[in-house]
Amino acid sequence: MTLKVGVIGTGVMGAEHVRLLREETAGATVAAVCDADAARAQSVAGAAAGFTDPLALIADPEVEAVVIATPDATHARLALACIAAGKPVLCEKPLAPTAEEALQVVSAEVEAGRRLVQVGYMRRFDPAYVEMRRSRIAGEIGEAVLLHNTHRNAAAPEWFTGAMAVTNSFVHEIDISRWLLDSEPVSARVLQGPGGDPLVITMETDRGQIVSTEVYMNARYGYHVHAQLVGRDGTIEMAAPTATVTNHSLRHGHSWAENWVPRFRDAYRIQMTAWVRSIRTGQPVGASAWDGYVATGIAEQVVTALQTGDSARLLLGVRPGLYS
Amino acid sequence: MTLKVGVIGTGVMGAEHVRLLREETAGATVAAVCDADAARAQSVAGAAAGFTDPLALIADPEVEAVVIATPDATHARLALACIAAGKPVLCEKPLAPTAEEALQVVSAEVEAGRRLVQVGYMRRFDPAYVEMRRSRIAGEIGEAVLLHNTHRNAAAPEWFTGAMAVTNSFVHEIDISRWLLDSEPVSARVLQGPGGDPLVITMETDRGQIVSTEVYMNARYGYHVHAQLVGRDGTIEMAAPTATVTNHSLRHGHSWAENWVPRFRDAYRIQMTAWVRSIRTGQPVGASAWDGYVATGIAEQVVTALQTGDSARLLLGVRPGLYS
Amino acid sequence: MTLKVGVIGTGVMGAEHVRLLREETAGATVAAVCDADAARAQSVAGAAAGFTDPLALIADPEVEAVVIATPDATHARLALACIAAGKPVLCEKPLAPTAEEALQVVSAEVEAGRRLVQVGYMRRFDPAYVEMRRSRIAGEIGEAVLLHNTHRNAAAPEWFTGAMAVTNSFVHEIDISRWLLDSEPVSARVLQGPGGDPLVITMETDRGQIVSTEVYMNARYGYHVHAQLVGRDGTIEMAAPTATVTNHSLRHGHSWAENWVPRFRDAYRIQMTAWVRSIRTGQPVGASAWDGYVATGIAEQVVTALQTGDSARLLLGVRPGLYS
Amino acid sequence: MTLKVGVIGTGVMGAEHVRLLREETAGATVAAVCDADAARAQSVAGAAAGFTDPLALIADPEVEAVVIATPDATHARLALACIAAGKPVLCEKPLAPTAEEALQVVSAEVEAGRRLVQVGYMRRFDPAYVEMRRSRIAGEIGEAVLLHNTHRNAAAPEWFTGAMAVTNSFVHEIDISRWLLDSEPVSARVLQGPGGDPLVITMETDRGQIVSTEVYMNARYGYHVHAQLVGRDGTIEMAAPTATVTNHSLRHGHSWAENWVPRFRDAYRIQMTAWVRSIRTGQPVGASAWDGYVATGIAEQVVTALQTGDSARLLLGVRPGLYS
Repeated sequence: MTLKVGVIGTGVMGAEHVRLLREETAGATVAAVCDADAARAQSVAGAAAGFTDPLALIADPEVEAVVIATPDATHARLALACIAAGKPVLCEKPLAPTAEEALQVVSAEVEAGRRLVQVGYMRRFDPAYVEMRRSRIAGEIGEAVLLHNTHRNAAAPEWFTGAMAVTNSFVHEIDISRWLLDSEPVSARVLQGPGGDPLVITMETDRGQIVSTEVYMNARYGYHVHAQLVGRDGTIEMAAPTATVTNHSLRHGHSWAENWVPRFRDAYRIQMTAWVRSIRTGQPVGASAWDGYVATGIAEQVVTALQTGDSARLLLGVRPGLYS
Repeated sequence: MTLKVGVIGTGVMGAEHVRLLREETAGATVAAVCDADAARAQSVAGAAAGFTDPLALIADPEVEAVVIATPDATHARLALACIAAGKPVLCEKPLAPTAEEALQVVSAEVEAGRRLVQVGYMRRFDPAYVEMRRSRIAGEIGEAVLLHNTHRNAAAPEWFTGAMAVTNSFVHEIDISRWLLDSEPVSARVLQGPGGDPLVITMETDRGQIVSTEVYMNARYGYHVHAQLVGRDGTIEMAAPTATVTNHSLRHGHSWAENWVPRFRDAYRIQMTAWVRSIRTGQPVGASAWDGYVATGIAEQVVTALQTGDSARLLLGVRPGLYS
Repeated sequence: MTLKVGVIGTGVMGAEHVRLLREETAGATVAAVCDADAARAQSVAGAAAGFTDPLALIADPEVEAVVIATPDATHARLALACIAAGKPVLCEKPLAPTAEEALQVVSAEVEAGRRLVQVGYMRRFDPAYVEMRRSRIAGEIGEAVLLHNTHRNAAAPEWFTGAMAVTNSFVHEIDISRWLLDSEPVSARVLQGPGGDPLVITMETDRGQIVSTEVYMNARYGYHVHAQLVGRDGTIEMAAPTATVTNHSLRHGHSWAENWVPRFRDAYRIQMTAWVRSIRTGQPVGASAWDGYVATGIAEQVVTALQTGDSARLLLGVRPGLYS
Repeated sequence: MTLKVGVIGTGVMGAEHVRLLREETAGATVAAVCDADAARAQSVAGAAAGFTDPLALIADPEVEAVVIATPDATHARLALACIAAGKPVLCEKPLAPTAEEALQVVSAEVEAGRRLVQVGYMRRFDPAYVEMRRSRIAGEIGEAVLLHNTHRNAAAPEWFTGAMAVTNSFVHEIDISRWLLDSEPVSARVLQGPGGDPLVITMETDRGQIVSTEVYMNARYGYHVHAQLVGRDGTIEMAAPTATVTNHSLRHGHSWAENWVPRFRDAYRIQMTAWVRSIRTGQPVGASAWDGYVATGIAEQVVTALQTGDSARLLLGVRPGLYS
């Protein structure tokens, strides 16, 4: 009854997934850990099995389900191996660096005839986003007409480009906007602030809604993600993300974290619990391989829009029946 | 030493200007009131002189300065009469319904060789906007790179069009954005939400900044104006606009007004005090005739952008030396 | 029609009252200024008359109404002189340092048979307190049962005692609590924090309500006054006192001032406007001499409660009919 | 490695504990469930063992640890049985309805020579309280001098008395105040609002700090718990407890729940995870039997203070070495 999970990758996210499985997830156990560095793999694995070859971990009969937390370029290949092995997999975002590769995962899954892949767009499990979507579906704000997103990082490496801001950061807004609105973006345009940062990306959806997103890679003051969903009858948006507020040194307010980890800690935990439960119940949750493909596919086209400065029509293939 | 003011128009704004002059403004008195309806004019005027002909009020030697609060179409003509009479005038926005007419006021003032016209873009006196501008100039948020504006009305008449949303509402954001940023918009694009409301208008400035504005004419939940100025080092934005918050009926929070009056009551008061003082000191404050022309001129071009759906280059004439 | 006001005292508050009369008050002019230092008096007076003898200012036929902003010990004596001269007076709080002296002013006014004295408990004109009282009277929170007050100063001089915290600071909460609740405190008890600062003062009213107040003289982080009124159906409390909020240096929030001036600037302005208008209309507003006596009288008894640590019954004389 | 837990009681809290163990707690499984109603017990137990006799569940060798969620009167007796059986127990608050009974549990544990009892004062695991305590210990607010607590229930049954408000509700503030401050209350006084509700309870601690608590059983507007810790350098307090805020119907803000369940859902989850981990590691966490005794003992004496209206000295026995 306890799900035996193998975790591939022991970086920040891989190590966190191991910790979540061990300390905060009911009904799961870490059966194996893989890292190219054997010592590192074994150190994180503890009493569990250590691997250096991810394909060996996937093949191990002791491993019932897999978490992929390796560098982006390897995601699709490993997800394909999990599908081939018939094992459920939670794959960190993005599903693949290119739409073409992401589509291969979709195709393999369609061929396999059942959903095995969940892509780690963890915002879908964040209590604020969950409440925003619930509220919209319950009709509490009336028809949704507009979504404002803010995505601010404290600092990006110097070599970070606007294209990377789209594929690394904005890709989260692509996924969460589709999920919040239950609609598909059909056009996009990108404005660049001084020096190319921040970006303001406006999209229209197939329901005529507007999605407006600020992506600011060097906001300096802290890591800050915000969303406000605007409806015909009212709006719903994120509250401040801290449990406490302080008065100190002529200031009142709350603190910002320096990166995404504290902001989305709960989302990662709930995602893991939901994934493990979904394997037990057979009811998939979270972002599917198709969602992973769409996010990557739209990001690619937004990069083009960024480079041309024009408004781009967004094109995607037909959604296979497996994902309806 | 007490400035004798004549007020033309006794609608909502005209009556409020009379009240402000009488009850909340130092160094001024209401010397005359004009309304097409003689009884109405006299009733508001009280012991002061009542007029039905605005030009007669302007010409009256007892009137030292004029407030214009008549329908928009008459503003330019009356402002021109004040300039001809050499009397300082506070003219409700817009300065004129068309850029062409507004430019006639500018030309007349330039010919007269001194600034007599202040346009009632009262947001420039709102404490929140004033603090945002002060903070930017003081360098507290670093270089300003982005401005987010939200302009929500509870309800618009059924016959209200998107073009009216631009010329009546967004015109405020045109003026305040220029003033907050000390830069000029050079391009604009308009996205329309479902049914044409809300609009999302993105502008770029001559310093490469982005100005993103939501204009929502039927937001239903209340009248809500917000602005956030984003800099390299931090952001500054409006706080909630109420003095109190409540707990009641499973809700915590503050109320929204149904229209702009309570939100900008202080701004109108401070504007009036500043205008009266500026006449005493000879130092003009607030939006000039040139600013009034620019706001109307850009609004006209944004209406075109709305109609085409394309991004529009914004073109204006050369700013006369009088306004530098 | 313009009220000619004489201002006695040119310290922080006196100078501010002169500025308010000149720059922000309709229907008034500064006719005279008094200071023991003749040069200082004349410098503040400008074109108006300068005095060094307050009684001479009060007697001057050019002075129609008086503002007292001298050291506390002189308030009662000067107020008595104004009453004797039949001139309306706005007297800075406290009306007198002792209840006995305050009662002399009350008696003189009762004898004069009309209300001439307004005590400068300016919080009664603060928009937040005004809204709280309006809401209670309108029945929006149901029967008021409890009032929480917080009164924090950033720093007090080293020689400041708990008794001074009561007579200088808490005296404001005595007045505003009576005004907010329309009830009278009948008992009080004082708890002292470590080293005697902060104090927590609990009072019961003649309607069985509880008034709980923190008075903290060295809160360090800033000047912070807060009140929450608790009713049977809900609560109403002050919102944050700033027009803007910022994100900077890993913090979100608003600033605190170092002292009371910015927090109550509007209250002082509105108080002055209301006082000038009340003289024109003959309808007294604000805290009366009786209110001034009660505030000082209760403060005296709370000082005794502080010294004994016991709960004290609060005793006052009978309110003369002039004040009902 | 998976802890086999038996849960006694299947009311609101018992059922929630079963759910938490099954769905949100790593390393535990529900081995047995007990309820006087056999059908109910078996329905909640599912595949696990159902009991009607709590002592039989405690004795069952398949049960390694016990959760007590039965009516208050039975807590002590069942906790004693767990101690006798040498099994760790998480006992819902209060440990016992009387100090005398609670002391018996303490004595039994002391005799047993090791800590087996954790009392379910779940606030110690609430992220806001945890952050407040961490901040104090880290020195971020300087020496703590004052704690303000607010404890509001939407509605209490008609037969609810002030004494019950103390023993059911205020008992939480007794425990959390000791934990937040690392000090012991030494005196208490209770003021009663109109009709005996709300109460304002002031306590002094052995470090001279003041703890001021409002307990309001019929606040109507919602369930609202708040705490602000005041230090020499600043304050820290709870933020709003919701993930989202809305604009609707002329209101901005967040909602209140009707009872404590949503507010402390996370605290219960984290408490359970911490308890299970503590059994694995042998490091006790949370409120001990001694803490449970102190909370009940002080509550008893506060009830006396409530009845006399006087300030009461709070007396407790000597803390056994097991708890230091």
